[in-house]
Amino acid sequence: MRKNARFISCLLLLFVAGIGYAQNKVLVFQSDFGLKDGAVSAMKGVATGVSRDLKLYDLTHEIPAYNIWEAAYRLEQTVPYWPAGTVFVSVVDPGVGTDRKSVVLKTNSGHFIVTPDNGTLTLVAASLGIAAIREIDEAVNRRKDSRQSYTFHGRDVYAYTGARLASGTITYEQVGPQLPKQVINIPYQAAVLEGGKLKGNISVLDVQYGNIWTNITTDLVNRLPLNYGDMLHVVFFHKGEKVYETDAPYSQTFGAVPVGKPLSYLNSLLQLSFALNQDNFAAVHHIGSGSEWSVEVTVSPKR
Amino acid sequence: MRKNARFISCLLLLFVAGIGYAQNKVLVFQSDFGLKDGAVSAMKGVATGVSRDLKLYDLTHEIPAYNIWEAAYRLEQTVPYWPAGTVFVSVVDPGVGTDRKSVVLKTNSGHFIVTPDNGTLTLVAASLGIAAIREIDEAVNRRKDSRQSYTFHGRDVYAYTGARLASGTITYEQVGPQLPKQVINIPYQAAVLEGGKLKGNISVLDVQYGNIWTNITTDLVNRLPLNYGDMLHVVFFHKGEKVYETDAPYSQTFGAVPVGKPLSYLNSLLQLSFALNQDNFAAVHHIGSGSEWSVEVTVSPKR
Amino acid sequence: MRKNARFISCLLLLFVAGIGYAQNKVLVFQSDFGLKDGAVSAMKGVATGVSRDLKLYDLTHEIPAYNIWEAAYRLEQTVPYWPAGTVFVSVVDPGVGTDRKSVVLKTNSGHFIVTPDNGTLTLVAASLGIAAIREIDEAVNRRKDSRQSYTFHGRDVYAYTGARLASGTITYEQVGPQLPKQVINIPYQAAVLEGGKLKGNISVLDVQYGNIWTNITTDLVNRLPLNYGDMLHVVFFHKGEKVYETDAPYSQTFGAVPVGKPLSYLNSLLQLSFALNQDNFAAVHHIGSGSEWSVEVTVSPKR
Repeated sequence: MRKNARFISCLLLLFVAGIGYAQNKVLVFQSDFGLKDGAVSAMKGVATGVSRDLKLYDLTHEIPAYNIWEAAYRLEQTVPYWPAGTVFVSVVDPGVGTDRKSVVLKTNSGHFIVTPDNGTLTLVAASLGIAAIREIDEAVNRRKDSRQSYTFHGRDVYAYTGARLASGTITYEQVGPQLPKQVINIPYQAAVLEGGKLKGNISVLDVQYGNIWTNITTDLVNRLPLNYGDMLHVVFFHKGEKVYETDAPYSQTFGAVPVGKPLSYLNSLLQLSFALNQDNFAAVHHIGSGSEWSVEVTVSPKR
Repeated sequence: MRKNARFISCLLLLFVAGIGYAQNKVLVFQSDFGLKDGAVSAMKGVATGVSRDLKLYDLTHEIPAYNIWEAAYRLEQTVPYWPAGTVFVSVVDPGVGTDRKSVVLKTNSGHFIVTPDNGTLTLVAASLGIAAIREIDEAVNRRKDSRQSYTFHGRDVYAYTGARLASGTITYEQVGPQLPKQVINIPYQAAVLEGGKLKGNISVLDVQYGNIWTNITTDLVNRLPLNYGDMLHVVFFHKGEKVYETDAPYSQTFGAVPVGKPLSYLNSLLQLSFALNQDNFAAVHHIGSGSEWSVEVTVSPKR
Repeated sequence: MRKNARFISCLLLLFVAGIGYAQNKVLVFQSDFGLKDGAVSAMKGVATGVSRDLKLYDLTHEIPAYNIWEAAYRLEQTVPYWPAGTVFVSVVDPGVGTDRKSVVLKTNSGHFIVTPDNGTLTLVAASLGIAAIREIDEAVNRRKDSRQSYTFHGRDVYAYTGARLASGTITYEQVGPQLPKQVINIPYQAAVLEGGKLKGNISVLDVQYGNIWTNITTDLVNRLPLNYGDMLHVVFFHKGEKVYETDAPYSQTFGAVPVGKPLSYLNSLLQLSFALNQDNFAAVHHIGSGSEWSVEVTVSPKR
């Protein structure tokens, strides 16, 4: 019996080791720090110091400096493709040192986002849903010996707390006190269908190629309705003033139009987008993105 | 006996766990997506969703947009330095949505490359050899819920299939049907020695420093023959027209010539290359790279 | 008894496996290679070939080409935030092929740095202390089949040796022969307090934001003494000549001054720094960094 008991302990150890290894322990970083200095590496060093078993990855560190809107957009674009249980640390923080709260959002999809609550959560809270929000208790969840430093919360609070949460060093409840289920929101034009006209926001540019991505989803597009080959008339606005207009056929592939010509398509997030085949729409026609940019789209009658 | 049997099971479990951990499970990504948006991160999220045990690394994501030649070159430059069994996902795909095939090449060196077959495999197939090519069966090897999206095969097909293969979720045979042992090739000038003159292609620029790398290997150089200290006369051509010519001593170190002066050397791939010591040869003399660029090299007589 | 012995072996195996997994095995790379080609990936491939269990991370690969001073600074900025036992590989090597030594520094803090001894160790040796320095014995610690290549020591010697050390394939003693406890130093102005005036070096620019970081630490600042709200008069010099001067209040947060206005603050390394709130100090006022740049700081009398 004693030997059996020991044997079972042995198997249990194996089992526990297995569970431990199977835990998520995935931590994904986003910031506006760039990759030219040691800031991102210092965050990863702190996380590795918390637990060497973490898998540390990046969303992007090329968010334009202080651009909270783009941080919000990149999270919404990317978080759903990571498995539930993944922890994200997002540090775009122009208000560092002011009274913005440091929080951890748990989404209904089971993802965690560690960030200053400054608008960064606008889009992901809306699309993935708020399961809970907790404020980081810096009396506990702050790197030791970091009291004298006032400017690198990314390393001393956000990376440290994210690593402790991802590694299971603390539970979600141990992050700090629960807050009301609401986040700081940046206002932007919602996607709507009004009298046969689609209106929406230019969420972001597909920067590498200059394609233009809107927040108009496939559901609205289908209600227009819209079929491949239909010609769309598209007008682009900045702060409500028309910047450019064009006709762009709704296409399944970029190769459906000649090189250099415009097309409309559904991007990989199933949102209505505009591109020039093998050229840069945004650069050629001076189109930007963010809460101040919008589009109006109508279907041209068949000729 | 029963206890012994259990004990052996226990050891077997340990052994199997050991084998499992010893598997390669290394996945390396290349693309022209850049690192400014969430595209690369979404691919890694999908891969992590397939298996949290994968080691995910990057070759580069700064391939110039749509530049298949450079994708081909970076693979040839890098694949051999990774251990056999490593899986590469390369997504430079101007023909996305057209009828180019999605394939996985297995090289004779035991590396796997998941990519559109659009010329990306030109150089690595030639240098490492084709063990087999299989077409990805998208009925099986495509991320669930990705049917409506037509533009992000990198995430939904290539990263997903690469992760399944690297993690052992599928065998190589389960990728899809076998194809004939040939790949789509981009034509380029082969390296040759003709009547004392070396001819070759300018494969790529060493972009950080502006050095010029050719496809002329150490074997041809030794047949010239060439000794350190010999003076080389080098002529650079674009589409067959002379762009620049210079004399560049064949040197073992950059420090062998004064700062700013040209030299010839063997790069880290043992290919004949040209540089200015601590300056940018390509920028100063307007030299490019790719299938349209070539060089001719002769040894100047000793003075 | 024999069964017990076997049982204990089983537990020992578990224990050893646990220890093995708990080892540091963390390898962090820095270089001036950039991320546009395959050089960094080839280094990681070689390291993965040494041991698939390594955790491979980056400090930065965007050190300006040949800028040893900045390599030195990034190490000092970042190394302390990684756990003891972490191995760093730093390759900024304008003297490749000359007689600079290839070394591994062990610091008093228990970190290892694999690098050419060309000034790269100037700052980290001073701040973390020299426990020992060993010269890499390339007869042993050089990648097989790399004898013909003269230019990529980063891959064939530094990454290879760093991976062998980090993975425990070799001990620190097996790196090669011990050297005297001194490194090649780049001269620079030390931080001093003289007659109420702080003098120091502009170590580096916080490149993403254009903030100016000095080597004047919190200890000197406190001896001035200096309190939040005090007005500082700051003069910037290049090669001893005045470039710009301004008044910058000593502030706990960037938000303490209006947007676009100058402030003094302690950066995340607790060093005196200067910034414009939400603007780029270095770009606006043409300030650089490195051994040739310095500042003088005095406290203005209260008005």
